[in-house]
Amino acid sequence: MKVSIIAIGDELLVGQVVDTNSGTIARTIAPAGWQVAGVQVVADNREDIIRAINSAFEQAPVVLTTGGLGPTKDDITKGVLMEIFGGKLVENAEVLENVRNIMNRRGLQMNALTAAQAMVPSSCTVIQNRLGTAPLMWFESAGKVLVAMPGVPFETSAMFESEVFPRLCKLYPSDITIYHNSFITTGISESALAERLASWEEQLPEGLHLAYLPNAGYIRLRLDSIGHDAEALKRATDTACSGLTRLIGSNLVAVGDLTPAQILLNEAAECGATIATAESCTGGNIAAAITAIPGSSASMLGGIVAYSNDVKMRLLGVSADTLATKGAVSEEVAAQMALGACKATGADIAMATSGIAGPGGGTPAKPVGTVCIAVACRGKVAATTLHFPGNRTRIVQRAVSHALIMAISMLREQKNLYKFGK
Amino acid sequence: MKVSIIAIGDELLVGQVVDTNSGTIARTIAPAGWQVAGVQVVADNREDIIRAINSAFEQAPVVLTTGGLGPTKDDITKGVLMEIFGGKLVENAEVLENVRNIMNRRGLQMNALTAAQAMVPSSCTVIQNRLGTAPLMWFESAGKVLVAMPGVPFETSAMFESEVFPRLCKLYPSDITIYHNSFITTGISESALAERLASWEEQLPEGLHLAYLPNAGYIRLRLDSIGHDAEALKRATDTACSGLTRLIGSNLVAVGDLTPAQILLNEAAECGATIATAESCTGGNIAAAITAIPGSSASMLGGIVAYSNDVKMRLLGVSADTLATKGAVSEEVAAQMALGACKATGADIAMATSGIAGPGGGTPAKPVGTVCIAVACRGKVAATTLHFPGNRTRIVQRAVSHALIMAISMLREQKNLYKFGK
Repeated sequence: MKVSIIAIGDELLVGQVVDTNSGTIARTIAPAGWQVAGVQVVADNREDIIRAINSAFEQAPVVLTTGGLGPTKDDITKGVLMEIFGGKLVENAEVLENVRNIMNRRGLQMNALTAAQAMVPSSCTVIQNRLGTAPLMWFESAGKVLVAMPGVPFETSAMFESEVFPRLCKLYPSDITIYHNSFITTGISESALAERLASWEEQLPEGLHLAYLPNAGYIRLRLDSIGHDAEALKRATDTACSGLTRLIGSNLVAVGDLTPAQILLNEAAECGATIATAESCTGGNIAAAITAIPGSSASMLGGIVAYSNDVKMRLLGVSADTLATKGAVSEEVAAQMALGACKATGADIAMATSGIAGPGGGTPAKPVGTVCIAVACRGKVAATTLHFPGNRTRIVQRAVSHALIMAISMLREQKNLYKFGK
Repeated sequence: MKVSIIAIGDELLVGQVVDTNSGTIARTIAPAGWQVAGVQVVADNREDIIRAINSAFEQAPVVLTTGGLGPTKDDITKGVLMEIFGGKLVENAEVLENVRNIMNRRGLQMNALTAAQAMVPSSCTVIQNRLGTAPLMWFESAGKVLVAMPGVPFETSAMFESEVFPRLCKLYPSDITIYHNSFITTGISESALAERLASWEEQLPEGLHLAYLPNAGYIRLRLDSIGHDAEALKRATDTACSGLTRLIGSNLVAVGDLTPAQILLNEAAECGATIATAESCTGGNIAAAITAIPGSSASMLGGIVAYSNDVKMRLLGVSADTLATKGAVSEEVAAQMALGACKATGADIAMATSGIAGPGGGTPAKPVGTVCIAVACRGKVAATTLHFPGNRTRIVQRAVSHALIMAISMLREQKNLYKFGK
């Protein structure tokens, strides 16, 4: 089954807000064999919304809209939907009660604009929004469904997963089976990998497809399988996965739809190791990537963001002499930072970065994009110097991925030699 | 002038990658009075791409595509564009040379797939891609323009700004003037703000429009002005901005399209203050938000990510007694963390967070979303407890914004009392 998504809002077209709802919806429906046929981003404009809805229904029988339901003047979606599906605005007592509760919980005053959220088209079925004031509206007509959802990402994702998608699955039961298998690879370019996999890829049976998803510092391969015969599809997928694993060889970091931070945390949890960070050019982003994962506190002790040289010396024990002779951006300083983070926090393994993220600060010997990364684990230290292309954000992202992947590799090696844990 | 954007790639529709290129393009063209009429996200599929191109040309005379130009099998855009604009694949020596240089610089081997990037439709004008291997292709036919650009965000943004948009401006000179004025507000809900501004908003002259852009922890208001008479528009905009500033009153944090981290860095630079962080539940995200800004090293010394209680004691000097009696998530611990960060790094001002980001770890007394934030500056400490709605990511984002806004306010107060700087 296919859905077509329309993201509504001027803020999306002027580039002040990025539409992340479509991706969330896609990830929620994929395991059930549903697909996003297309996404349209349109302004808070009557004609544009109507044109987008018509075009969306040409692509799929289910249309999901996000946004345009806020209490402020520039949100007009409700009126446009009544032009298409008929009905008139009626007050919904349950929505009014919900809005009142939400405002109370947030310690805010209810006013006329918020109260207007309780006025809903008589032509729709209302789905209560537990997390916000804008109710969800389900319109159904001639075998087609349109669900209008709010634009706030955390409201949309929670309500879509718990309320909207279960109702859609009930309305359109499916016999298609879909599998997604992800493989995280590193140390090889997209085209070199594609060349290595070319003949294997050509021999993939019908219904199987490989996608290349390059990330900063690693490539994710996703093998999608789709078919009606679940058992045959499972067999074909298993065979393909084994072949793919063999071909990727030592460039394989992990199997599964995991980020490097998740892989590191899984490894650490398995062997009982504790983790710390010492970041200069990545400025807290390694720690942020690790702590973004629920439960990370089981392995992650903490870290030091050592942006100034003084903090590198004070908190990480980096030697003034090394800073003077080798410079802050050197493998020697990165190594001392990693060792210092282990010592300061008591962690078993620590990653450290020191580099030039730009746009300023580059020199002929150490141009923008030069990053020294070190990993220390139980006295052993590995350090390397890398040159990343791109802008400041991209250089930092790549350094973060690279540091995490170096730590994964070091931990896999060291856990065979040491027993971690208290 | 309007452009319509098509983002091409299966990875965008399965939710593995978010389209950030459209936003970048929108922000680049807005100051020149250009607008994005709409965005379509489509799969690497011939029919979908053709349908999207036709639909895009109904919206605007300029169509920009991103993605679908990679070296791997699933990228088919080039062939589809030749169906529409004609021509045949020819080798472009300059592109081949560029691909060779890029591969060399990245220390990668050139292979048949990468070399194929140099085969371009004879019907287009090639624009060299300085940052990647996929060349940009400019098609022009019957007064309409289509520019195919790569999907890699840093390549697209740099090439669009430096090469594509200047050429588009030359082709379609414009006499429209546009102004965007942003106002960052805090401590007031979207609907309360809308109510306060309602009568002012109704009296806005033609061509002026106010948009509400809620963020985690603050609301950005953007006043857009568009018109042909630049001088009259300037006068009307100035009057509207003064009125708006007066109405927002003490809820105004800053004027301009700035993030809280940028505002804090501007304040710090102005008074010569140095900054540090002490983060528990925000796990490095405050430091990451600050260090994301080029030049932040002038004020930002560093920080401590104190995820475990042990690290809070070791590196920030938090008292074991306070941790035992008040708990890690308490204003007392947050205050000690902030003071400890000042002491450990030597910074003038430090922000600290300790909270429960979830999904686990909540208790009836301290449910998920409880965050204690403290700011210390020259011995003065302010601490507060907040309850944020939403999931882990959202709670962290809100805590980050709130901590930064608290620091801005503290710094504005203290800079009148102390002279910072060495």
